[in-house]
Amino acid sequence: MANEKIGEGDYVLLCLDVRRTYMVKVEAGKTFHTHKGFMKLDDLIGKEFGETVQSSLGIEFTALKPSLTDYIMKSSRKTQITYPKDAALIVMFSGIGPGSRVVESGTGTGALTMALAHYVKPKGKVYSYELREEFQKNAEKNLKRANLLDFVELKSGDVTAGIEERDLDAVILDLAVPWLVVPHAYKALKASATIVSFSPTIDQVVKTTEALKENNFVFIETVECLMRGMQVERGKTRPHTMMTGHTGYITHARKTLKPQQETPSGT
Amino acid sequence: MANEKIGEGDYVLLCLDVRRTYMVKVEAGKTFHTHKGFMKLDDLIGKEFGETVQSSLGIEFTALKPSLTDYIMKSSRKTQITYPKDAALIVMFSGIGPGSRVVESGTGTGALTMALAHYVKPKGKVYSYELREEFQKNAEKNLKRANLLDFVELKSGDVTAGIEERDLDAVILDLAVPWLVVPHAYKALKASATIVSFSPTIDQVVKTTEALKENNFVFIETVECLMRGMQVERGKTRPHTMMTGHTGYITHARKTLKPQQETPSGT
Amino acid sequence: MANEKIGEGDYVLLCLDVRRTYMVKVEAGKTFHTHKGFMKLDDLIGKEFGETVQSSLGIEFTALKPSLTDYIMKSSRKTQITYPKDAALIVMFSGIGPGSRVVESGTGTGALTMALAHYVKPKGKVYSYELREEFQKNAEKNLKRANLLDFVELKSGDVTAGIEERDLDAVILDLAVPWLVVPHAYKALKASATIVSFSPTIDQVVKTTEALKENNFVFIETVECLMRGMQVERGKTRPHTMMTGHTGYITHARKTLKPQQETPSGT
Amino acid sequence: MANEKIGEGDYVLLCLDVRRTYMVKVEAGKTFHTHKGFMKLDDLIGKEFGETVQSSLGIEFTALKPSLTDYIMKSSRKTQITYPKDAALIVMFSGIGPGSRVVESGTGTGALTMALAHYVKPKGKVYSYELREEFQKNAEKNLKRANLLDFVELKSGDVTAGIEERDLDAVILDLAVPWLVVPHAYKALKASATIVSFSPTIDQVVKTTEALKENNFVFIETVECLMRGMQVERGKTRPHTMMTGHTGYITHARKTLKPQQETPSGT
Repeated sequence: MANEKIGEGDYVLLCLDVRRTYMVKVEAGKTFHTHKGFMKLDDLIGKEFGETVQSSLGIEFTALKPSLTDYIMKSSRKTQITYPKDAALIVMFSGIGPGSRVVESGTGTGALTMALAHYVKPKGKVYSYELREEFQKNAEKNLKRANLLDFVELKSGDVTAGIEERDLDAVILDLAVPWLVVPHAYKALKASATIVSFSPTIDQVVKTTEALKENNFVFIETVECLMRGMQVERGKTRPHTMMTGHTGYITHARKTLKPQQETPSGT
Repeated sequence: MANEKIGEGDYVLLCLDVRRTYMVKVEAGKTFHTHKGFMKLDDLIGKEFGETVQSSLGIEFTALKPSLTDYIMKSSRKTQITYPKDAALIVMFSGIGPGSRVVESGTGTGALTMALAHYVKPKGKVYSYELREEFQKNAEKNLKRANLLDFVELKSGDVTAGIEERDLDAVILDLAVPWLVVPHAYKALKASATIVSFSPTIDQVVKTTEALKENNFVFIETVECLMRGMQVERGKTRPHTMMTGHTGYITHARKTLKPQQETPSGT
Repeated sequence: MANEKIGEGDYVLLCLDVRRTYMVKVEAGKTFHTHKGFMKLDDLIGKEFGETVQSSLGIEFTALKPSLTDYIMKSSRKTQITYPKDAALIVMFSGIGPGSRVVESGTGTGALTMALAHYVKPKGKVYSYELREEFQKNAEKNLKRANLLDFVELKSGDVTAGIEERDLDAVILDLAVPWLVVPHAYKALKASATIVSFSPTIDQVVKTTEALKENNFVFIETVECLMRGMQVERGKTRPHTMMTGHTGYITHARKTLKPQQETPSGT
Repeated sequence: MANEKIGEGDYVLLCLDVRRTYMVKVEAGKTFHTHKGFMKLDDLIGKEFGETVQSSLGIEFTALKPSLTDYIMKSSRKTQITYPKDAALIVMFSGIGPGSRVVESGTGTGALTMALAHYVKPKGKVYSYELREEFQKNAEKNLKRANLLDFVELKSGDVTAGIEERDLDAVILDLAVPWLVVPHAYKALKASATIVSFSPTIDQVVKTTEALKENNFVFIETVECLMRGMQVERGKTRPHTMMTGHTGYITHARKTLKPQQETPSGT
């Protein structure tokens, strides 16, 4: 029997339905309150992930083991999170995988950091730069909760002033002025490796694309992703009425070794 | 110096610009022909990935190390490929990562298989079922080229008749009748683990969603992803004129252990 | 000087900015209250449409002459309105114009009725069927306000039981069971004329399309329209974060005279 | 019997299916060739619009009376046409209807001109400016074919140098430098009337929006419209694979009479 048992200290996603899910930490003696009644968290201990539990009002919740997307969506937020749809594409365009070494900036809520760490673990590393201590502390909490902190080095620093790491597999930017980081990313990346930048405005995309061209990156592409949910029910199936219309544009490119036009730059 | 050198037998992505890239296998004595002149592949050997090479007409190409998305887009195709935008979301919703054990069906071109193998390696495994031998052989070639065959077990079998594996982290379906596989997926998955189904038609989505509800899956959600490319140039920036309007819907859900309503089903 | 003056009884759109506009009826002695102060409506009388007026707090509002889209968006609502994006496409696909005779069902809020009346006036006519008296009375109010009631005949009736009019230029359906109306629409339309149906669910689209095929309609097409707003500001331009993800599908077709396959049906 | 008969000189839309339609002018003695056989156009004369006709190979075509969208889609093209989805929204945002007086520039293929003329007829007028004589002549042909030329005054002129008309209900711009026309549009429009600009690039939208703000326009909004077709068939319904990803952004605004900030400008 391979199903995992819920232990004290574990995080559990209590799922009533698709729209009502709650991330709780199982602590002995604690009670979790919902508008559908309360639940003694003691009762979860020893159950298997995937079992159902009843609230004081007899309402059934499923006790799921949180997945990466759950940790992202339930992040403690001090700023905007990177949504799974964008995190998924950023990861894929970056080319990273188990063992990769990645620089990310800024850390923000740590939502994207979690995704990066999840895919490079156990031997890879995410070096995540953040200027605001408040954000960094919050991200640390989120990463710890998702058991991903071991694969991340949280750094207090300004990547517009430089990146300390070298021979990186990818540099991932989600900050206001990505174009200022492009020359530093060039130095920090392996040849042929990938830079990915996520920005809400067109102007950021244009400036970043120009910086990429000037700094010897090629295969430069910008896309945006619109994700729409469906309401599925026989005879009544239709797209949901509301959707997120925009989060940001994703620009990605690859480092080339041809001599740079503007300023010489070695690896 | 960490940059990797191109050796005989390596695959190289020759990049002229975003729309014109060519995947070549470096074989001594061979010549690669483009409408921009030819290239002696011998000349690539010993160069670093990321360097530029010139064709016989003096046109510069960058010799990139292929990334996961390049291997996917340049797959040898016997059938429709799963596009990176969909592969990225399927991977993220599946919750898999390094070490995961996944069943996929059908193998098809192996495009999605590559993505799954890339993220579960080196200790995880993808068990990929395919009925058509012709597809399987082609997929094997694609996986070998991308150095991902070691992490995949290609199986000739019909998942609508059953899944042999147990305690899986995810089951990924991209076949005509996913709803017929749902009961087998239930048995094959760990509790709380994820099923993801990719289907082009609404009818498939409805039938699969119903099968998921009947078979004790919860947290059932269907989305579609529209990706639009941007033409980025100062003063002329705009979305591209053409885009892919539809590939398929992604339905995902989680296995719960509550007693099934219709037919009892154990793990 | 051609600018029109505001008179007592006129409707005026008070515009603070794009997101804050208010439709008011100019009545002597009345006061209009906003969170930006109040306004004596007497003060509007004799001004020209397009002039600015100040609230009691000194905030400037522009007094615009309401356009069709303003009347639609500011409809008194008893049910969902047809949004301008959909009304615009329905009108265009219907082929109607000045002088056309159109049947519509149901009247609903009268939002689409307004659009139809606006484009067929002054010599055309919209015959608008509605079962619920409450909706009809509300729609009448909306049409009167927009000065379009003269071009509409509001009918209390059930189009699934039949359409009284003949030789119509278009039949426009926005009701739960459009497929039941298709045979009646066939009889009511001129040859080569257009039927347009607006439905939120896929199932309605499928059933309506089948009914159209069985009832000798051709050139059958279904589309959906996604409209996304832009936040335009130099250096900060980007799509809006939220958008309407779905309103409905628009199916349109043309009546042909070829003998029907299923059941004979003449004009 | 109200059905209209096909006469010599009429245009007919021969419809095989949704994707294969042909606009033909009925001329005695002429033959129309398709890959499904030929058709003697004499045979169409005296038939009713909506009847079916057979090609020499026995394939049935429906002889439809062309609607506005047919004339637009079958325009003789010297340049990009304005698609019905955009024409529909431009017309609706413009607020025009029967009797309106509108300036448009540039005429281009005349596709948008047709839509404008269709909705302002019979008493309204479209003043359509075009610099290139070749485009103008082609547009004239398209308008004549659609029986809409009487409601249009084709003008050879440069609206960036000024608009001759006054007291217009709307100014519609589809040209490379709309922002240069904004001050002239201000003078040409009635107070409270509407300007609509259609542009493919973000940069044009930004410059036009700035010009609108500087020239006393309010209620300024920019949207884009994505239209996606559906393949409708019981059990196989799905969105079409390909779609148009971008045509242009639609910016619209209303003229206000408040004193201008930058440069004084009267009506």
